[in-house]
Amino acid sequence: MNVYIIGVGLIGGSLALDMQHEFKNCTIYGIDQQEEHLQEAINLGIIQKKAELKDVTNADIVVVSIPVDVSVDLIPEVLNLVSDNCLVIDVGSTKTQICQAIEQHPKRRNFLATHPIAGTEFSGPKAALRNLYKGKTNIICEVEKTAFKLQEKALDIFSKLGMRIRYMDPKSHDKHIAYVSHLSHISSFMLGKTVIEKEKNERDIFDMAGSGFASTVRLAKSSPAMWTPIFEQNKDNVIETLEEYIQNLQHFKQLLEEHKFSEIYSEMENTNHIKQILTGIQEVKLS
Amino acid sequence: MNVYIIGVGLIGGSLALDMQHEFKNCTIYGIDQQEEHLQEAINLGIIQKKAELKDVTNADIVVVSIPVDVSVDLIPEVLNLVSDNCLVIDVGSTKTQICQAIEQHPKRRNFLATHPIAGTEFSGPKAALRNLYKGKTNIICEVEKTAFKLQEKALDIFSKLGMRIRYMDPKSHDKHIAYVSHLSHISSFMLGKTVIEKEKNERDIFDMAGSGFASTVRLAKSSPAMWTPIFEQNKDNVIETLEEYIQNLQHFKQLLEEHKFSEIYSEMENTNHIKQILTGIQEVKLS
Repeated sequence: MNVYIIGVGLIGGSLALDMQHEFKNCTIYGIDQQEEHLQEAINLGIIQKKAELKDVTNADIVVVSIPVDVSVDLIPEVLNLVSDNCLVIDVGSTKTQICQAIEQHPKRRNFLATHPIAGTEFSGPKAALRNLYKGKTNIICEVEKTAFKLQEKALDIFSKLGMRIRYMDPKSHDKHIAYVSHLSHISSFMLGKTVIEKEKNERDIFDMAGSGFASTVRLAKSSPAMWTPIFEQNKDNVIETLEEYIQNLQHFKQLLEEHKFSEIYSEMENTNHIKQILTGIQEVKLS
Repeated sequence: MNVYIIGVGLIGGSLALDMQHEFKNCTIYGIDQQEEHLQEAINLGIIQKKAELKDVTNADIVVVSIPVDVSVDLIPEVLNLVSDNCLVIDVGSTKTQICQAIEQHPKRRNFLATHPIAGTEFSGPKAALRNLYKGKTNIICEVEKTAFKLQEKALDIFSKLGMRIRYMDPKSHDKHIAYVSHLSHISSFMLGKTVIEKEKNERDIFDMAGSGFASTVRLAKSSPAMWTPIFEQNKDNVIETLEEYIQNLQHFKQLLEEHKFSEIYSEMENTNHIKQILTGIQEVKLS
């Protein structure tokens, strides 16, 4: 089985590591714009061989794990090249634009739109991890548009990687993920920014930071190259979540200003049940 | 050595566990408004004996680890009761009001104002952990107002617990800690609220949440009883940080609305150096 990973970073690299382990007969080829990433991926045992885009004619499976703006342009090209039996999997964090981009493609049935909810704040081949996907959710969009036997092939892989599957339409995916992923990244980046701005004059601040701060700003380490196109593609949904978040913060500030501390208590108490909601979501500790 | 812990929760309980281990000759007495907490603390081996406030006449060390509003009223009473050689340590998250409250107390020299930057989002005796303080920062305020030999006693304990010490005046402490701790709690609570509000209608959202979301909302599990009085005592500083945070979020939203994605890229890139800043702060993974 010839597996081509386009983009040998955290997501593609982790997938390659698990697939090598689960499928004894597979050869992993890496394609990446950055030559040093390919070499690093070989040294780390993530891929076996370097390849170029034109080589995917020979692929059984192609995984596209690159920034979502590049995917929209590249995936139609990949579909042009691959054989009739090849499965092309996209793993990006937004699903509407990519599904639209290949809607009319003659090889639409070779394509599967997925979003594995897994990752860390790090990027590049060094960030790849074995078992990153174990116990995680994979959201599959427009499954009915993929050929039966390629659906089957994909589900077999995801099952061997230990993922649970949820089916969703691309628009609902993008709307919901704005709340539980995209907004978290913005809140974290802006928290980091607020404190760094202060720190310019107050060098002692970070000496006072504890694990709580580290946890809330962890996502501010994420890659701008990966996240800028995500925010661009999901702009409308992200703006909506951001408005609601800012409103809630303003309301909290107003309660402080008006000295309404019993209401502040209630605000926190009502949100405490996030404990139950989060049960089962494991925090990744890598910093 | 008779050690009295007033408030046998996460902070006081963890301190009790470490002190038992480091000082073989110490007896730990627990004082707590909640009888079931005391019983639990005995069952968990956190304290050896239950006690009442009047018993602190007999104490060598009293640690006050209760909500900061209660501390302000209780610490003067504790100082009234203790002997001349007793060290009374406060470990609350705000320092200005408590330092003011005991400024003129005849036993001011028996008191040491500290803030160990350690903790988790959990509370109560069950949350107590051995080695919680190892490698963590302890901020000591107005050290010059504590008697020499009691300073020495306290530093010996903190050193055995593995803490590094930073000296600071109470006003600077409260101003800086608003950025690296109090603001993180609000950003986390309001992020949790925003997503929970949405989830009322959209039951599927939490199935899509990953480790990034879990990390950014972790602090939203924190105790309202502990945090409401912290926000109240540090109201002015907290409002200031919140204003700056909201401004940064609004600016980010505006960049989205105006489709300025190269500026969004720069915003994230500039904040990325939080990586270096956070090196050395360990995230606590307990959820």
